Amino acid sequence: MEKITKALVNENIDEFRQLFLKLHPYDRAKFYVEQSPEVRKRMYYYLSPGEMAEIFDHLDIEEDEYKTYLSEMDPSFIAQMLAQMYADNAVDVLNELDKKEAASYLTMMGDEAAKEIKDLLHYKEYTAGSIMTTEYIAIHANQTVRSAMQILKKEALHAETIYYIYVINEHKQLVGVLSLRELIVSDDDQMIHDIMNDQVVSVLVDEDQEDVARKMKDYDFLALPVVDAANHLLGIITVDDIVDVISEEASDDYSKLAGVADVDIQRSPLDAAKKRLPWLIILLFLGMVTANLISRFEETLQKIAILAVFIPLIAGMSGNTGTQSLAVAVRRIAMGDFSKESKWKMIVREALTGVIIGATCGSVIMVVVYIWKHELFLGLLVGVALFATLTVATVAGALIPLIMYRLRIDPAVASGPFITTINDIISILIYFGLATMFMNYLL
Amino acid sequence: MEKITKALVNENIDEFRQLFLKLHPYDRAKFYVEQSPEVRKRMYYYLSPGEMAEIFDHLDIEEDEYKTYLSEMDPSFIAQMLAQMYADNAVDVLNELDKKEAASYLTMMGDEAAKEIKDLLHYKEYTAGSIMTTEYIAIHANQTVRSAMQILKKEALHAETIYYIYVINEHKQLVGVLSLRELIVSDDDQMIHDIMNDQVVSVLVDEDQEDVARKMKDYDFLALPVVDAANHLLGIITVDDIVDVISEEASDDYSKLAGVADVDIQRSPLDAAKKRLPWLIILLFLGMVTANLISRFEETLQKIAILAVFIPLIAGMSGNTGTQSLAVAVRRIAMGDFSKESKWKMIVREALTGVIIGATCGSVIMVVVYIWKHELFLGLLVGVALFATLTVATVAGALIPLIMYRLRIDPAVASGPFITTINDIISILIYFGLATMFMNYLL
Repeated sequence: MEKITKALVNENIDEFRQLFLKLHPYDRAKFYVEQSPEVRKRMYYYLSPGEMAEIFDHLDIEEDEYKTYLSEMDPSFIAQMLAQMYADNAVDVLNELDKKEAASYLTMMGDEAAKEIKDLLHYKEYTAGSIMTTEYIAIHANQTVRSAMQILKKEALHAETIYYIYVINEHKQLVGVLSLRELIVSDDDQMIHDIMNDQVVSVLVDEDQEDVARKMKDYDFLALPVVDAANHLLGIITVDDIVDVISEEASDDYSKLAGVADVDIQRSPLDAAKKRLPWLIILLFLGMVTANLISRFEETLQKIAILAVFIPLIAGMSGNTGTQSLAVAVRRIAMGDFSKESKWKMIVREALTGVIIGATCGSVIMVVVYIWKHELFLGLLVGVALFATLTVATVAGALIPLIMYRLRIDPAVASGPFITTINDIISILIYFGLATMFMNYLL
Repeated sequence: MEKITKALVNENIDEFRQLFLKLHPYDRAKFYVEQSPEVRKRMYYYLSPGEMAEIFDHLDIEEDEYKTYLSEMDPSFIAQMLAQMYADNAVDVLNELDKKEAASYLTMMGDEAAKEIKDLLHYKEYTAGSIMTTEYIAIHANQTVRSAMQILKKEALHAETIYYIYVINEHKQLVGVLSLRELIVSDDDQMIHDIMNDQVVSVLVDEDQEDVARKMKDYDFLALPVVDAANHLLGIITVDDIVDVISEEASDDYSKLAGVADVDIQRSPLDAAKKRLPWLIILLFLGMVTANLISRFEETLQKIAILAVFIPLIAGMSGNTGTQSLAVAVRRIAMGDFSKESKWKMIVREALTGVIIGATCGSVIMVVVYIWKHELFLGLLVGVALFATLTVATVAGALIPLIMYRLRIDPAVASGPFITTINDIISILIYFGLATMFMNYLL
């Protein structure tokens, strides 16, 4: 790396190119990002648009950073680079620019590349269409293995993967699939329709990318064909894009459970605070509801101050169980597991789980409070309140994501902090409700 | 599917085999798992051990379920099936059995298969070694493309992937790599050492599987070679195994944040309760610490009952911010991002974030309390307490995973419920501490 930097600084083009182009594209991209804008500008002179395209295909940056890099380049250089990137990646870059700018690059590039990219620009984010590429290899069923291999050799450098070859009919409909492995072990004179697999697993162009990821994971494919409702082959999705989808979605669910917009992008403290404050302010006002509730029981509290001692314990425990059952419900819904049993069955199951958890924790706290404070009735009150709140909190944790799912809101939005605050309110109501009802025994 | 079931029930072997073997192995595995034990037993007669091996290579079940299925088969059938599975998958199955049983199957199978599996059985769980397979294709640098293609055609059916070919020297050390794509576009007479890539990205056999996954994701590889410290090629890891690792690890981190042992395996309510109770009982006793703390301030509370009103709000908010900063810290550590800046820088950054968040929420609550209760000093107390607790909670959320990382405990173990309860304690101390100190103003 040091050598490469040195060659760059010394304006030694040949040495720089020789060393730099030997690196894996991902390492080239990493090197590129780490340079100062001045050094990067020199790189644009030392590298061709095609070589920069390879770097951009491997950039691992936040989407809003593309603009910064592009602002350092010539417009015609950008257009040529975009034309030589994999179409799906070029679309990702163009989506970050304003429409006018994107359109100007599209007019500057060759018609063929522009058409490919324009076709992809239509598809909605997070659908199969938005992550597919049109650079696949397609052949016809009535070819021989030999002619298929010739097509493959010719297109090998442009296709995003050559390891699956798709078989289409005269209407461009998908009729079969063949792995390069199967092609290689076959005789040259065999016909494609004799060796191809006609049970093709494909995805619809408007299918959610999470469902595509699940299919790819289950079937261990390296690529999946994307078709429209009439089974026309539109593109393919390769496993490397799916790996990115899986880790993005996982990080997304994780962030939501923690109640942060995005755990992965945090630059300055102010930036971080901005990401976290929206939820916190909402929760602060929900917390005011709790405070308001307790203040209605101020009379009870004035008489029996010891009641306050157990507020955080009961509220906290109900938040904890709620978070647990929430996480289980969110995952089950996300994994599509949930369709296997009815909503009601899931809720009944959670209710039973809540009863077991509530009974266990309630009994433990009853004994502990009795030993600690020597007050049988106080122990009984705290124990029964904990039993009731934990049961309700467990059901609430499962119910809220289910309701969201029904309302077509992403269930993962129901964060841990949110369910915790909701359960705070429920638990205070139960605890002080019971305490007020049975106050005579406590005095 | 119905047809297949019908053919099975009618003992129509030919039709069953014809229909069943046309399915993708994953669908075969799904069909297999859905059958009753009686029907499955019939399948063992209708299918060869090799055909069952393909099903077992694609089973998507919990690891402890293997035993159930194996108990339905003949020992010799099991041994033959294991021998024909991909070695890494066979190891997963054998790891679930007791040592004696596993050894007996190994003696029953051929020497070659047994050796391959035995070699893999040594590696620790969650390392590169434990997920690699030894079924790769290796060639020498001084071969021609033609002879490499011949080796490839011969081994294509046994290798787990044929899309990367690894080049080794006479000591079995890894010296280069070549994709099948590069091989195919090369002339038959070219020498391997002229076209191979000698900058091989590889992983060490004892490297953590999460690091392997990150490498595979960054470089968009379909397979990664695994070497020992002396660069001897030991095996390869394919992308389909990495997809599984990524989604398992993600689900694992998610479970831990929610404080559940495993969100994905939940069969009966009793089972679910068992998974969730261990954490809850620990948290219950930590909650007792909070209760004990408050009870020490009973005197203060008796004089100013209104203090109790804000306990859940302050405790809850500190739990929420703590969970947020915990999640960010855990992810940063997991993504290896954290090495980029020093521990101290990260903590200072979080402290500043906490100050911003605390100042914002503190000011809001101060105004709200003043408007609501018309008590300036109470508003001031709650506001300052919230400011202090949120700052401390944010730092605590980042500090705890960092300490765990230092102590070589998986930082993801620090769950949301845990940090929430710790922050309950801190916030109660700050709130009641301030209230006791400035009691005169409140009375």
